[in-house]
Amino acid sequence: MDIKNDFMYSISKLQEKVNDFISKDNIGREPFSLYDPINYTLKSGGKRIRPVLVLMACNLFSDDIENAIKPAIGLEIFHNFTLLHDDIMDHAEIRRGNPTVHKKWNENTAILSGDAMFIKAYEYFLDCESPNFKEILKVFNITALEVCEGQQYDMEFEERDNVTEQEYLRMIELKTSVLLAAALKIGALIGGANVKDANLLYEFGRNIGLAFQLQDDFLDVYGDTEVFGKQIGGDIAANKKTFMLIKAQELAQGNNKTQLNDLLRSKDISREKKVKAVTEVYNSLQIKEIVQKKIQELNKKALDYLNKVSVLEDKKSELKKLASKLITRDN
Amino acid sequence: MDIKNDFMYSISKLQEKVNDFISKDNIGREPFSLYDPINYTLKSGGKRIRPVLVLMACNLFSDDIENAIKPAIGLEIFHNFTLLHDDIMDHAEIRRGNPTVHKKWNENTAILSGDAMFIKAYEYFLDCESPNFKEILKVFNITALEVCEGQQYDMEFEERDNVTEQEYLRMIELKTSVLLAAALKIGALIGGANVKDANLLYEFGRNIGLAFQLQDDFLDVYGDTEVFGKQIGGDIAANKKTFMLIKAQELAQGNNKTQLNDLLRSKDISREKKVKAVTEVYNSLQIKEIVQKKIQELNKKALDYLNKVSVLEDKKSELKKLASKLITRDN
Repeated sequence: MDIKNDFMYSISKLQEKVNDFISKDNIGREPFSLYDPINYTLKSGGKRIRPVLVLMACNLFSDDIENAIKPAIGLEIFHNFTLLHDDIMDHAEIRRGNPTVHKKWNENTAILSGDAMFIKAYEYFLDCESPNFKEILKVFNITALEVCEGQQYDMEFEERDNVTEQEYLRMIELKTSVLLAAALKIGALIGGANVKDANLLYEFGRNIGLAFQLQDDFLDVYGDTEVFGKQIGGDIAANKKTFMLIKAQELAQGNNKTQLNDLLRSKDISREKKVKAVTEVYNSLQIKEIVQKKIQELNKKALDYLNKVSVLEDKKSELKKLASKLITRDN
Repeated sequence: MDIKNDFMYSISKLQEKVNDFISKDNIGREPFSLYDPINYTLKSGGKRIRPVLVLMACNLFSDDIENAIKPAIGLEIFHNFTLLHDDIMDHAEIRRGNPTVHKKWNENTAILSGDAMFIKAYEYFLDCESPNFKEILKVFNITALEVCEGQQYDMEFEERDNVTEQEYLRMIELKTSVLLAAALKIGALIGGANVKDANLLYEFGRNIGLAFQLQDDFLDVYGDTEVFGKQIGGDIAANKKTFMLIKAQELAQGNNKTQLNDLLRSKDISREKKVKAVTEVYNSLQIKEIVQKKIQELNKKALDYLNKVSVLEDKKSELKKLASKLITRDN
């Protein structure tokens, strides 16, 4: 196959391409009541990371990325479907500054429109003309299942006190990383990459995805509310077993241990006081430095994989830029 | 392609094949908590009509039906997924004599295991080796979306008083018929049928599916509780807008009209009395004869399509037998 990749799209150009497509694309027909929540969810914004990753990976191997757009949008639709159903399960009321679907409509609508949204994601994949079509669909399918497994672990961990670092990393790998990894692999396959390169990009994405989620955990404690876009301390208030809490529970001794356990159990303390006090325990245990070190380790691992991908180094610059943005972002 | 179909499987042999496959097939891996409800649902029985239709349609064109088994099971998994999510939306507590998943576990589990189940259905389709693979997947995908549309209409009709016969038939077409139709089309395509024959079988299935659902409505009023397996009158008690109620509302005049409206509005009357009184209105309007006539019309239409399928007449005997069973069944 003749692979050309003389033209590199910038991240912002690809983001624009994705947003442009989504804004013009009205999904649905009668009964519109089934499709309205789908359009509402898709057009409510988001960083469009997954479709951009599909297009960037495709662009590593091919100038022509048009054939990757439909699967890219399919992946974004799938991602938004998982948010829609997760929001029901988590009783979340706000998503991207708007009421969640089960709040704006009702729970039945959220379940059923979510199901339809998921089917729509497949429809976009079925529009992809690629000799690797079946392989691409298999990557998407196994990834979709893994995301469900991740959500299941996430829900189960809420009921458990003894979640280990390893278990937590496996959970976020399933819930978050594999979809970023699959986006890259799918884009690469559409662009004509060989299996080895496609798998290297998958591993790059898997590690960046882990670092991306740890940065999320980090921002919930050490982010700037104004930049972060939501109140910090949400994870602490909810006793969410993040990497930071698990590390703190592992390292805390003596006074720190007693205080942390008391804070986790206490029901009387105000949210503000709890967030402040838990953060102080984190500070004294240097959790900030530990999570940042972990993020850097994962980043290094990711870049090692990217370096092995057999395209010219300067083709990889935009992907490196995006990876760096994802793990140093402040919102 | 060399198409051979010297050997015809009987309905019961195919049912056995499907049940055998499902009983041996344990879906899942860790976290088992995600997969347990899937196995629970799949192994709880059911008539296995859809997978049997896939296999029968395949067998019309080919002796070798092995390649149709995975998609057949995929369709059964999809059907059971829709029941699982529908049961949440309908607050149903019992399915096939067992507690529904959201009752036995909880609603979050039912949502998420349902999602995973749907992905599993695709996985079984992705295992199908057929030159028509993409076409087959497209039939499955569009049908899945139509089933969601049917469920949406069904929920909306609960809130409406003015549902017409035409709207009702379209709703049951989407919610029930298209999946039976798609089962036949998919099986035919796997067996090597040409597009014309595959579409004729689709139309056969669509009409049989409508008759099948009308028979369901009929049994709810005129069935024998012992044979039907559940208490009759459930639709009447719930004011469900079935074909029978819509026809009765259309035809009722004078006393019948007043009485029917009173019965639909009344909240004080016992279930038993309501069922009896509404059935009496139906009787005086000859609703029983009207629905039976409609079923026969649809059956005739279906058989006209089947007759045009370009395989020898005696190959069609099992399919005719199954169709006849579906629309004259008493449970």
